[in-house]
Amino acid sequence: MALEEGQNGGAEKVAVEVSFKSFKPQLFVEASKANDAVQFYKTAFGAVETCRTTQPKRKADQELPHIVSAQLQLAGSTFVVSGLSDDSASTKAGGTLFAMCLETEDLEAAVTKAVAAGAVAEGGIVEGEGACCCAERVTTVKDPYGFAWQFCSPADECGANVEA
Amino acid sequence: MALEEGQNGGAEKVAVEVSFKSFKPQLFVEASKANDAVQFYKTAFGAVETCRTTQPKRKADQELPHIVSAQLQLAGSTFVVSGLSDDSASTKAGGTLFAMCLETEDLEAAVTKAVAAGAVAEGGIVEGEGACCCAERVTTVKDPYGFAWQFCSPADECGANVEA
Repeated sequence: MALEEGQNGGAEKVAVEVSFKSFKPQLFVEASKANDAVQFYKTAFGAVETCRTTQPKRKADQELPHIVSAQLQLAGSTFVVSGLSDDSASTKAGGTLFAMCLETEDLEAAVTKAVAAGAVAEGGIVEGEGACCCAERVTTVKDPYGFAWQFCSPADECGANVEA
Repeated sequence: MALEEGQNGGAEKVAVEVSFKSFKPQLFVEASKANDAVQFYKTAFGAVETCRTTQPKRKADQELPHIVSAQLQLAGSTFVVSGLSDDSASTKAGGTLFAMCLETEDLEAAVTKAVAAGAVAEGGIVEGEGACCCAERVTTVKDPYGFAWQFCSPADECGANVEA
């Protein structure tokens, strides 16, 4: 994270170098319907699933594990379907039903730069929720136009638990 | 558009071949704030604008033309910021503040396949609105989970009116 003065007249301007590795829209779906939603995007648009993280089984034995996040590829881009549950980071993502995920090595710098530009940080960094599919650290900012952006640590180990 | 029977037991199943050229999330912002929003995404995330379509000036002479759609590149992906106005296709896109744009040569086939999978078509094909940035034909379906998907004709002439 590099801090320096802006060049174009604004002495107060903060220039932070942030590099983003990927950009993925994330759609939040009620957890019990997330499996169906993933199947729908495969059937309707030909999306291909490349990653899935699930919660451990809970409550009844016959209940399938809920999807935390499934990553889908479509027309050369990637998007994420996440199950909404009361205790997930998703629910804390500002109440919207979608967010934009930006993968970056430096979550703190990304938040600093976004906040300097007018975004509002929503809570701190959450560890180990897999919210953007396999990301280990996630944090959220809300932009001035009401959209949620999630900064996620890179997910290098993605690929397990994929259902064709 | 090819129609054939499904192979896996469902005699009623419709298999339609659809190829998507690109996939872009689209954020709808109040028209008077769309310029500011584009500037914010450049400043906060380092997005690069690659296309802009604007409405002709209207009302007062001093009023800047509103953005219909601006296309931005970020971390190897593309997204679109569109100004919301009463008479735009955006407003008709199911009342959500965002949509997913899928570029395709065959809008009709895309709608057929999506509807067969459970989506609901929202109105017909709209011509010449530039809703997905330079697309000449656009139509919208709502998926069973509340998300709007816009099928857009390919935008080969994009690139004019870009502001750095």
